[in-house]
Amino acid sequence: MTAAALRLFDKHEASLRAAGAACRERSYFTLFPETPDRHRGGAVAADVGAAAFRAQLGHRFELDQPGTIGRLGDEVSPYTLEPLGIDYPRADVDALFGAARQAMSAWAAAAPQARLGVCMEIVDRLYEGVFETAQAVMHTAGQSGPMSYAGSGTNALDRGVEALAYAHAAMMDVPREALWERRFGSTTIRLRKRYQLVPRGVAVCFACATFPTWNAYPAMLASLATGNAVIVKPHPTAVLPMALAVRKCREVLAAAGFAPDLVTLCLDSVAEPVGKLLIKHPQAAIVDFTGSARFGAWVEANAHPALCYSETSGVNTVVVESVDQLEPVLKSLATTMSLFSAQMCTSPQNVYVPRDGVRHAGGRIGADEFGAALAQAIASIAADPKRAAPIMAAIQSSSTPALIDQLADEGSRRGRVLQQSAPYAHPDFPSARTRTPLLLGVEAGAQDLYGEERFGPIGFVITTRDRDAALAEAAADARAGGGITAFLYSTDEPYIDRAVAAYSAAGAQLTCNLTGPMPLNFAAAYSDYHVTGLNPAGNATLTDLAFVASRFRITQSRAPVA
Amino acid sequence: MTAAALRLFDKHEASLRAAGAACRERSYFTLFPETPDRHRGGAVAADVGAAAFRAQLGHRFELDQPGTIGRLGDEVSPYTLEPLGIDYPRADVDALFGAARQAMSAWAAAAPQARLGVCMEIVDRLYEGVFETAQAVMHTAGQSGPMSYAGSGTNALDRGVEALAYAHAAMMDVPREALWERRFGSTTIRLRKRYQLVPRGVAVCFACATFPTWNAYPAMLASLATGNAVIVKPHPTAVLPMALAVRKCREVLAAAGFAPDLVTLCLDSVAEPVGKLLIKHPQAAIVDFTGSARFGAWVEANAHPALCYSETSGVNTVVVESVDQLEPVLKSLATTMSLFSAQMCTSPQNVYVPRDGVRHAGGRIGADEFGAALAQAIASIAADPKRAAPIMAAIQSSSTPALIDQLADEGSRRGRVLQQSAPYAHPDFPSARTRTPLLLGVEAGAQDLYGEERFGPIGFVITTRDRDAALAEAAADARAGGGITAFLYSTDEPYIDRAVAAYSAAGAQLTCNLTGPMPLNFAAAYSDYHVTGLNPAGNATLTDLAFVASRFRITQSRAPVA
Repeated sequence: MTAAALRLFDKHEASLRAAGAACRERSYFTLFPETPDRHRGGAVAADVGAAAFRAQLGHRFELDQPGTIGRLGDEVSPYTLEPLGIDYPRADVDALFGAARQAMSAWAAAAPQARLGVCMEIVDRLYEGVFETAQAVMHTAGQSGPMSYAGSGTNALDRGVEALAYAHAAMMDVPREALWERRFGSTTIRLRKRYQLVPRGVAVCFACATFPTWNAYPAMLASLATGNAVIVKPHPTAVLPMALAVRKCREVLAAAGFAPDLVTLCLDSVAEPVGKLLIKHPQAAIVDFTGSARFGAWVEANAHPALCYSETSGVNTVVVESVDQLEPVLKSLATTMSLFSAQMCTSPQNVYVPRDGVRHAGGRIGADEFGAALAQAIASIAADPKRAAPIMAAIQSSSTPALIDQLADEGSRRGRVLQQSAPYAHPDFPSARTRTPLLLGVEAGAQDLYGEERFGPIGFVITTRDRDAALAEAAADARAGGGITAFLYSTDEPYIDRAVAAYSAAGAQLTCNLTGPMPLNFAAAYSDYHVTGLNPAGNATLTDLAFVASRFRITQSRAPVA
Repeated sequence: MTAAALRLFDKHEASLRAAGAACRERSYFTLFPETPDRHRGGAVAADVGAAAFRAQLGHRFELDQPGTIGRLGDEVSPYTLEPLGIDYPRADVDALFGAARQAMSAWAAAAPQARLGVCMEIVDRLYEGVFETAQAVMHTAGQSGPMSYAGSGTNALDRGVEALAYAHAAMMDVPREALWERRFGSTTIRLRKRYQLVPRGVAVCFACATFPTWNAYPAMLASLATGNAVIVKPHPTAVLPMALAVRKCREVLAAAGFAPDLVTLCLDSVAEPVGKLLIKHPQAAIVDFTGSARFGAWVEANAHPALCYSETSGVNTVVVESVDQLEPVLKSLATTMSLFSAQMCTSPQNVYVPRDGVRHAGGRIGADEFGAALAQAIASIAADPKRAAPIMAAIQSSSTPALIDQLADEGSRRGRVLQQSAPYAHPDFPSARTRTPLLLGVEAGAQDLYGEERFGPIGFVITTRDRDAALAEAAADARAGGGITAFLYSTDEPYIDRAVAAYSAAGAQLTCNLTGPMPLNFAAAYSDYHVTGLNPAGNATLTDLAFVASRFRITQSRAPVA
């Protein structure tokens, strides 16, 4: 089996090494063009993917894995509000762990290169099927078509390769053997030492509802490449993207001669969750978690003795101090706050503005006026369904509209509603669950409103005493609530320097003075470190050495040689 | 201050890079000759060190650190059974954390090279003072003179440099900045990205009683180099070696222009321990623990949210299946089981012998006969105080003799006492607390006797059904009880291969067929990975990337450039 896997390594080695070089330089790199028209399969691949997705609707998902004790499935498309009608195997948890352990022995014994070759082939095959995955993401997470393809397809695969490049580096840091020689008294001792990489065990990978693949691919691939098995636990409302990934992993593993049970799917329902059972299972060795801050905190505190890598929430902050031109800033902010209806862990939520307003080339705009202008910029997107649809897409969870309305209520009592949230008419999907962003204007100090992540299209314009308070409070809220991203607009260099320092201390990744067509919160594989581990937004970074180096251990043997 | 520190980096860069190269090759390397006669300071340095130690006896230890609320000190020399009469500052825990946090800002902001330069200078100055440290170790831990110098001096410093080499590699893996450029639609976005290394916070480093410096140096230096502050918590019976290290760190830090409070000493008493207080302190970010398995398990389970790196105990196993010559094997086993009275985490404890005995070139020796021969080999060391003293040294803890006697009792009821333990007369220190090894012969299955670490000179010869049972049970006991080292004697290649696989799965480092003057359990810095993290002996490895890569985090900022 290793010969086939090593051929896969040869096939993908140049790509893996190029990815590794990009990680060390952190310059632009991708293995996958971001637009569907440049897919290597051409238009045919798009049609095949869409047809495969349609053919799956209303049918059982075929997944030949052990321990099946029933069927489950309850997905509803945010675009049609129709059930997908797909049911998946419901698995006995012990059976999955048992099968995973059994599958691991040959996988663990294989050369790191063999495992990396298989993992790169998995990525390649996932790219082949990216159109079907994109449809699956669209109709579970509610992402737009372009985001499903790029964000959940090609970018997610690049983040997976990035994790493989780090796993490669960390494993290659350990030599296979060494000759060690020194004198003890008058005798020379020569020892041949052999070092072996040993996986931790069975990894459990939780995928979230709104962006399932983006965090799960790197976690799954990092665990697999270092010799572990992976049980994938998707969110019950967004199963299909991960079920497709699990099936693809199993096919590639089997084709390379390894046991497919190295990757299995463990589905639960909202009524009967199995998350804690998986985490506290005596054979759980690694937990990768993406999901809510509340459960994430429990996972972090209780995963032991399993290793825990988490990403939970983002209280992402914006400070607007001074700008050259107001218009492009408002447009970028409005677009990014509207993007996928702010259902991204990187979406900006809190905009801090000094009470005396924002300097710009033409003078100064007051804080209230700035809030109104931002609301207007959002409204202009919302007012045009053809423009709104590819940006705002759909609302994943049926509970989000109620949360928006509740905050609109509270906001109107404690501040002002700058922009009311309302459904917009999606041009392609008339039944789509949609909501334009709610924008609230409040005074600094109302952290009970904006100090935690308000998941969905909910934003705050927060008036602070002055510009120093804006920065101090924004950074403090990011630190306390868990900021992943942060954004600054300022033309004052010393102020920018202070912001860089403040957000570094707060553990949020800062983007300064960006305008134009790039979404402010775009996180590039191989270049942008995602999540610092320095605040409650999560403890793991995509991708640094720490994300991979503990997923395997090192054993050694030594013996005298002549 | 950074200029001075960067000069230190220049001074030590070649050594650090050579250490890094050795780590990647895992071949023999050292920065420090192992014998006192080759110390760069010559005989004078030895005299100065010894005089400094003598001058300290009966006097307060001068350590100008914040938060002192009293004095403490209760050390007794295992060689003289006299109190050392040294008292140390007793510190207010909150004050130490506060001072550490304050000291960190400039340290964290310094270039990694500046911190590495200061850390290498600390190592260099500790080497300068190694004679005093060796005396301190001898008269607290009870090690022999040569072991105090080499094991707790030069080898420990090499392990410290090894950790610095890994910290260097992990920090250099992150570039300081990158230029990232890609097209979004028809627009090219160019971003300058800056990456910053951010320390975790305040590290707490627990040092153990019998080998304080060997684990503590690497932990302290790994934390310091990556920007953290360190509070050192020595065992109350072995304070002086760590107090000397803390004072030296503070001197070097201050001389380089940094706040000395980056390294402080936190002493407690057996009656009033502060360990849990330190670990659960809200500002504790990293815990390095070396000590008992019982407290270690608590630390591992409760350190969260602090990172935890542990080494606890070693149930170290020996399988004797077949040998060429019996004599050198018995001699090596007897010597290593006697070395420092088996008060090392790497000391072999359990010797598994097949019931039908051990094949050798001259025929076969029965299991009972083998046990008797091993006892005789130990007895021949014990019988000659001049030979025993440099090998067995002294017993660190006053509670160990009672433990030995209790096990002798139990052993005589449930098996046979192959070699009785008794004090031996140390030729240089007539009052020394000494005990020759107790060797018990038992049947396999008595894991309640030998399945955990019996700290001190206590060994078991365990008769198993056959050679397969010997290997299976030894590996299983190492896996369950926590083996760090393991030893095999076999001339049968397939059997050796099975042993390599079994101990790799058990997570114990295996030494095969070693005889001669090298202690079987000698662990070489830069070459031998110490502790795998795969069994209860601890979760951290000296040294791999995982030991350093999480001690710092990465923040970034990005902004458009023309």
